[in-house]
Amino acid sequence: MGKSVSIGLLGLGVVGSGVVHLIKNHQEKLQHQLGCDVKVKSILVRDLEKQRDVNVGDILLTTNPNDILEDAEIDIIVEVMGGIEIAREYIHKAFQAKKHVVTANKDLVALYGRELHEMASKNKCDFYYEASVAGGIPILRGINDGLSSDRIEKVMGIVNGTTNYILTKMSDDGLSYDVALKQAQELGFAEADPTSDVEGLDAARKMAILGRLAFSMDVDLDDVEVKGISDIELEDLKYGEQLGYTMKLIGYADFQDKELEVNVQPTFLANNHPLSSVKDEYNAVYVYGKAVGETMFYGPGAGSLPTASAIMADVVAVIKNIQLGTTGNQYVKPHFPKVLKTPDRRFGQYYLRFHVKDEVGVFSRISSLFNDLKISFKRILQHPLKKDEKAEIIFITHETSLANFQEALKQLNELDAVHEIKSYYKVEGDAEE
Amino acid sequence: MGKSVSIGLLGLGVVGSGVVHLIKNHQEKLQHQLGCDVKVKSILVRDLEKQRDVNVGDILLTTNPNDILEDAEIDIIVEVMGGIEIAREYIHKAFQAKKHVVTANKDLVALYGRELHEMASKNKCDFYYEASVAGGIPILRGINDGLSSDRIEKVMGIVNGTTNYILTKMSDDGLSYDVALKQAQELGFAEADPTSDVEGLDAARKMAILGRLAFSMDVDLDDVEVKGISDIELEDLKYGEQLGYTMKLIGYADFQDKELEVNVQPTFLANNHPLSSVKDEYNAVYVYGKAVGETMFYGPGAGSLPTASAIMADVVAVIKNIQLGTTGNQYVKPHFPKVLKTPDRRFGQYYLRFHVKDEVGVFSRISSLFNDLKISFKRILQHPLKKDEKAEIIFITHETSLANFQEALKQLNELDAVHEIKSYYKVEGDAEE
Repeated sequence: MGKSVSIGLLGLGVVGSGVVHLIKNHQEKLQHQLGCDVKVKSILVRDLEKQRDVNVGDILLTTNPNDILEDAEIDIIVEVMGGIEIAREYIHKAFQAKKHVVTANKDLVALYGRELHEMASKNKCDFYYEASVAGGIPILRGINDGLSSDRIEKVMGIVNGTTNYILTKMSDDGLSYDVALKQAQELGFAEADPTSDVEGLDAARKMAILGRLAFSMDVDLDDVEVKGISDIELEDLKYGEQLGYTMKLIGYADFQDKELEVNVQPTFLANNHPLSSVKDEYNAVYVYGKAVGETMFYGPGAGSLPTASAIMADVVAVIKNIQLGTTGNQYVKPHFPKVLKTPDRRFGQYYLRFHVKDEVGVFSRISSLFNDLKISFKRILQHPLKKDEKAEIIFITHETSLANFQEALKQLNELDAVHEIKSYYKVEGDAEE
Repeated sequence: MGKSVSIGLLGLGVVGSGVVHLIKNHQEKLQHQLGCDVKVKSILVRDLEKQRDVNVGDILLTTNPNDILEDAEIDIIVEVMGGIEIAREYIHKAFQAKKHVVTANKDLVALYGRELHEMASKNKCDFYYEASVAGGIPILRGINDGLSSDRIEKVMGIVNGTTNYILTKMSDDGLSYDVALKQAQELGFAEADPTSDVEGLDAARKMAILGRLAFSMDVDLDDVEVKGISDIELEDLKYGEQLGYTMKLIGYADFQDKELEVNVQPTFLANNHPLSSVKDEYNAVYVYGKAVGETMFYGPGAGSLPTASAIMADVVAVIKNIQLGTTGNQYVKPHFPKVLKTPDRRFGQYYLRFHVKDEVGVFSRISSLFNDLKISFKRILQHPLKKDEKAEIIFITHETSLANFQEALKQLNELDAVHEIKSYYKVEGDAEE
């Protein structure tokens, strides 16, 4: 490979600029580790004339992808343009030209990860995407290399900074969802159209990628059940706080008895859970391994330089593989067949808030309903509501199957005495009294 | 290497038994990842007759190290016997016999890491020691691979579970140091002779290893300044709590402007610092990188299976290297010359508690003393003490050089009005009001 490795960069937005900056400023570290220069040779951009914050020096800017994909001097393609089909097409071409690929594109990897891995493998190319999950946190390496000997049973992630920022402001500052979202938008933590973040779609993509890696199984994006945060009311956060719980949007993936569950949903975490103190726009991934027990990886989930740091860790890995002649070896085919857990095999605790007629015998009817379904309670709050002679009841259940909990909701809805089910959320951990 | 990789285990204590257990129980995962069987062929023990919890099946137990070190069928030596000189001798022999070595021995790596790395390299052998720092947390890989492109400026670690357990019980349950230590001993979190843990020596070894790796520099154990926790009084923890700080034994390593500082000392962490919520016997390492910013790696710092998980991650890495023909490549010589920071170049905030005569003009004299040294205060508490017409003063300073702070202590001690300096501790972060 000579004395220098050349990178072709697809995209020069926030993350692409970070990559250019990092390569320039960390050249000594890269040189020391790799014994060669690393340089960006050319960058695919949409608009050659655009003013940019980053100084690209003598790097070639081009609007023609073939200037990069067909340049024999370029060893590694770094794809940070986003989008799906065009990025996929360019990466196909890169592999055909025996170029290694590093990407931060979670949408692409969630949808086409396996295809791209197989293509990379066939062409003896490397394909890395550490930056696609949890920004600067080296979580994919943590799972893949750091916990390589362990049997991972559970992964829980705060993998979307936007929603974590909004929920933190709601919990800590008492802001409503709408005000917190607006604040996040003003600070650049949320996009003008926040749907993909607040409805949990972004987190779902990351959970598909994490689940695949942690459990060695073909997890598809469609397997990830999703519930977002846009319906969350301050009132529930306050009750949660009173009972010792903090609300987070949790990506949850569990693989036990060879069955998989993976979803994204707002969840009340006991305040002693390691994830509960992860605030603002920070991300963290909690991994439970059969041998290691509880571990957590914490850091910035987005941002120009943190994301660039993850991308360049991949580039360093690729360059070491090139030097050792071992590229194209990192893909291990999924091992386990995918069996999704049915609701009667999914267990959890639940928070439930609902309104009832404030009459004699109502509570007893309700408790026998839950009792018949073998659902017992860890915490109960009941108080009269000022208007309408109603009462509000809040339960935190002990562990129950999702099927039984759903049946309880159905039967509750059918009771005359029940006025309205206001909200319910999954609960993780045991709050200290 | 054929269809099976053979491991020779030196030691069958708590960690060694964990390795045997894990290899047996995670065989399917290892098989899938590596495409070959992994087995323990023989184990060096002190006493062949000893009853053991772990079922060793048909593994050969021997008291003769040469049965293992000279066995041509053994590819990898896992050293979990502890101690220094004998372990070192066996590892030398292993490298001479072209065997790869994985160890959990922090004492050995802290003292002879460079020697062993060079010897491994010369013999084209691998030498890994993930388990030597922070038990099951894959922190060495996190730094080495996950943050490989970043310039790491600071590492702060809760890397000793014993002291973290003791400090947690003191802070949360109001136990005295002696009672908390006794509890830790009863639970097996502290040894009968706890000196190495409570005086910070164990943490110092881990910080030497972390510092070397993070900063690419020849950090020696002697470079690590150490202050333990055995003098800590409950009173200081209570004042800390009142001001928004939690006491932790922090291993601190900082490399900025090409100068190094590395020490272990009890430190007040602001309650919003990611490390402040790490409780009981858990460990965590906080890494600040120029690009990535704040990251943290959390998990169990000791224990049979967590430590075995880290050891086996190393074994997996070695086996992959054997299969690819790339062993002996992981060592990169230290890059930077070591320059230790002098006290005038070491900056920090400090907590200081002292008693003064409760007289007119005393506080003014003291504040002008600090003012002359350009030390200003972030927080001040003063209250009268019931007896002796004395007052107690607690300062938290803004950032100052250690030299200036030491000079302030000296001048305070010389003041007639100052009765006694009770305690002082380093402070990290800004507590929220």
